[in-house]
Amino acid sequence: MQFQLTDMLVEQVKHFVLNQDDKALKNLLSEYHYADIAEILDELNLDDSVYVIKLLDSETTSDILMELDEDNREKVLKNLSSKEIAEEVEELDTDDAADIIAELPEERQAEVISKIEDAEHKAEIEELLAYDESSAGGLMAKELVKVYETWTVAGCLRRIRGQARDVTRVHSIYVVDKQEKLIGRLSLKDLIVAKSEQKISDIYITNVDFVNVDEDVEEVAKVMAKYDLEAIPVVDENQTLLGRITIDDIIDVLREEADKDYQLAAGITQDVEADDSILQLTKARLPWLVLGLFGGLGSVFIMQGYENIMATVPSLFFYTPLIAAMAGNVGVQSSAIIVQGLANNNVKGSLINRLLKEVGLSLINGFALALLVMLFGYLVGQNTTESLAIAVSMMSVIVVAALVGTFVPIILDKRGIDPAIATGPFITTSNDILGIYLFFVIAGKIIGF
Amino acid sequence: MQFQLTDMLVEQVKHFVLNQDDKALKNLLSEYHYADIAEILDELNLDDSVYVIKLLDSETTSDILMELDEDNREKVLKNLSSKEIAEEVEELDTDDAADIIAELPEERQAEVISKIEDAEHKAEIEELLAYDESSAGGLMAKELVKVYETWTVAGCLRRIRGQARDVTRVHSIYVVDKQEKLIGRLSLKDLIVAKSEQKISDIYITNVDFVNVDEDVEEVAKVMAKYDLEAIPVVDENQTLLGRITIDDIIDVLREEADKDYQLAAGITQDVEADDSILQLTKARLPWLVLGLFGGLGSVFIMQGYENIMATVPSLFFYTPLIAAMAGNVGVQSSAIIVQGLANNNVKGSLINRLLKEVGLSLINGFALALLVMLFGYLVGQNTTESLAIAVSMMSVIVVAALVGTFVPIILDKRGIDPAIATGPFITTSNDILGIYLFFVIAGKIIGF
Repeated sequence: MQFQLTDMLVEQVKHFVLNQDDKALKNLLSEYHYADIAEILDELNLDDSVYVIKLLDSETTSDILMELDEDNREKVLKNLSSKEIAEEVEELDTDDAADIIAELPEERQAEVISKIEDAEHKAEIEELLAYDESSAGGLMAKELVKVYETWTVAGCLRRIRGQARDVTRVHSIYVVDKQEKLIGRLSLKDLIVAKSEQKISDIYITNVDFVNVDEDVEEVAKVMAKYDLEAIPVVDENQTLLGRITIDDIIDVLREEADKDYQLAAGITQDVEADDSILQLTKARLPWLVLGLFGGLGSVFIMQGYENIMATVPSLFFYTPLIAAMAGNVGVQSSAIIVQGLANNNVKGSLINRLLKEVGLSLINGFALALLVMLFGYLVGQNTTESLAIAVSMMSVIVVAALVGTFVPIILDKRGIDPAIATGPFITTSNDILGIYLFFVIAGKIIGF
Repeated sequence: MQFQLTDMLVEQVKHFVLNQDDKALKNLLSEYHYADIAEILDELNLDDSVYVIKLLDSETTSDILMELDEDNREKVLKNLSSKEIAEEVEELDTDDAADIIAELPEERQAEVISKIEDAEHKAEIEELLAYDESSAGGLMAKELVKVYETWTVAGCLRRIRGQARDVTRVHSIYVVDKQEKLIGRLSLKDLIVAKSEQKISDIYITNVDFVNVDEDVEEVAKVMAKYDLEAIPVVDENQTLLGRITIDDIIDVLREEADKDYQLAAGITQDVEADDSILQLTKARLPWLVLGLFGGLGSVFIMQGYENIMATVPSLFFYTPLIAAMAGNVGVQSSAIIVQGLANNNVKGSLINRLLKEVGLSLINGFALALLVMLFGYLVGQNTTESLAIAVSMMSVIVVAALVGTFVPIILDKRGIDPAIATGPFITTSNDILGIYLFFVIAGKIIGF
């Protein structure tokens, strides 16, 4: 029952396209969900994709377009006329319609909008395009089912039959007063269970969650996840009902957010995929590598300063990659836990307690690792003072690295900067330099140079 | 309108608990959503939390329990009698009820189950407890609205009024035949829009997505996200309808998955939070640090082998942290992109193409970085042959690190191992050793030692 994208299926589609066997092609594709057809099209070349899009009716192709890989969608849209795009847009819900139009080059946007025939749909799309992409307004759809508190259940059912035809899924019915102010909600279930002569004002639920149209989408996602909401109404500052956001859009927000944080932690600055071009991948990867390079060159400087002890305690130099690695690893661990905690709102308590905890934790870890280093030194017959100096200074480096990893994200967060940028290369690089510097300073005190 | 957890609110609750002012406490908390009350309880000590839980009615507290931090829930449950837990469980949907019971120590599970009064609820919970936690069966609830194809719309509406009272949200109405086999679906909207004398068999939609009860939850999440489903029915191998999974549970799966991958990439082996105990955090962090330590000790060995050239080309040793950092960073970047691509199913095409692409990409990055190293060498007046040797060997290390970062996850994935473990410390450590070894070998060839 589950769809499997096979080479055979792709070949079959290509074959029908090549022979312009429209009937067979339509027949074949009619069996598949639009999301599956989008997967097939992502495997075709541009001309073949455009051929399929032009062949199928716009009710299906509009949904397919939304599911295509963003790069492919851009290319396909370039090959459609403004009139054709407008036809696709007519079929989409206002939120998806606005998203598609927002992706077009600016000069084409007005052209496509002018060709939308349904005046109401057009006005709603224009309204949505005005909101910031990362705000609730940029995510919401205008399609919703709305009833007035003065209606009866029977009248309500009759009238929402009309509204509901335009709405793919009815999550909640929003109740408004005469001024279009949101005052409550109802579920279809409540309506069905109620008696037909009852008034809406007698049965609606006044306790309704909502978000302001300017709210950040990540905040909206948090609210919806916390309260297990499948849709949330969006209002302006007068509480006027403007639209609604559904959970499927929130899932996309959550996934993008998780992907972005993961990439940031890995030192990738832009949203890229494995199949992007070499140029795009280089642009996303090179900046952090250059930062790492400067960090490494900093270590070169520090170590050059100790060149005179190379002859007497060469072993210190052999340990520098180990010290850098431990400083980096500890810093990344600490920062990852804090960044996640900040994202999930569970970093509580005072900074002093957190400081003490992190010091305690890194002392335990550091002590265990220091013992292993001493053991290694003993096994390879290293001078005991040197082993001790290395072990103790490594331990200090670990404590400092843990503190840097913990407090840099907290400080960034307090200043309103996304703490996720503090994990990965940024922490690794600063901890590398700091760690190597501390290592030589502390080992120097112990050995005496 | 949005809930803000303030110290004042927490103090007020503590105050009412201390004075056992039950009426004021009930009154105060009645204004808040159960998810908000759970946040308040997470701030109280255990005794106070238990006091509040015992005070409020089980309809509210069962939901609060589900929202509590897992550690706190465990402690609270320890302080409730089996009878009290059974009462909470009676109020919960079967999926949540089974989750709560599964968290109890084994010896208490049977005791709590035996005290559930509703025989049907009890049987359903026992059925759910038998499924693997990470399978569709472990995630599904038994609550759903089911109609037989032979019913009429009017009869259907009448009967689902009864079923719907037990179901928090009606997503879809599932249509079954006489043998309870899932044959289609209907939305409440379809039912409302239809004429009351029509038969279900005339109006239901045969095209229904479903998952097998043994399907992995991550696979279920992918299917639901792809097809924008808000609920999906679960069937056995005979297509018998067993339960349904709703999107709010999938959101939790997606978040846990993202958190786990993020932590793995940061070298944290268990699911931990910033506020976990030092011991738990040590257990999660120390293993990877020990691995990193062994890697570092490996580098010590390699460098000791080159001790004899320390006097002639000391600068090589100054560059080892830089080489290790570049090898680590490049490896983490490559592996993160591949791991994400594998998770999102967009790593396509042949391995040869991917190899060529990764070599090309790392040559471009490596060349740019090598130029910077040459420039640095020139500025600090370093011997040109040495600078060249360092730059060229660094470039080779970058290419190799990128290949390791790309292909280790792919190979793990092909062998059925979660590729996410290959990012972070694992790749960093192996690339550190390999990088330093290659660096000395290649630089040796160029300088001639």
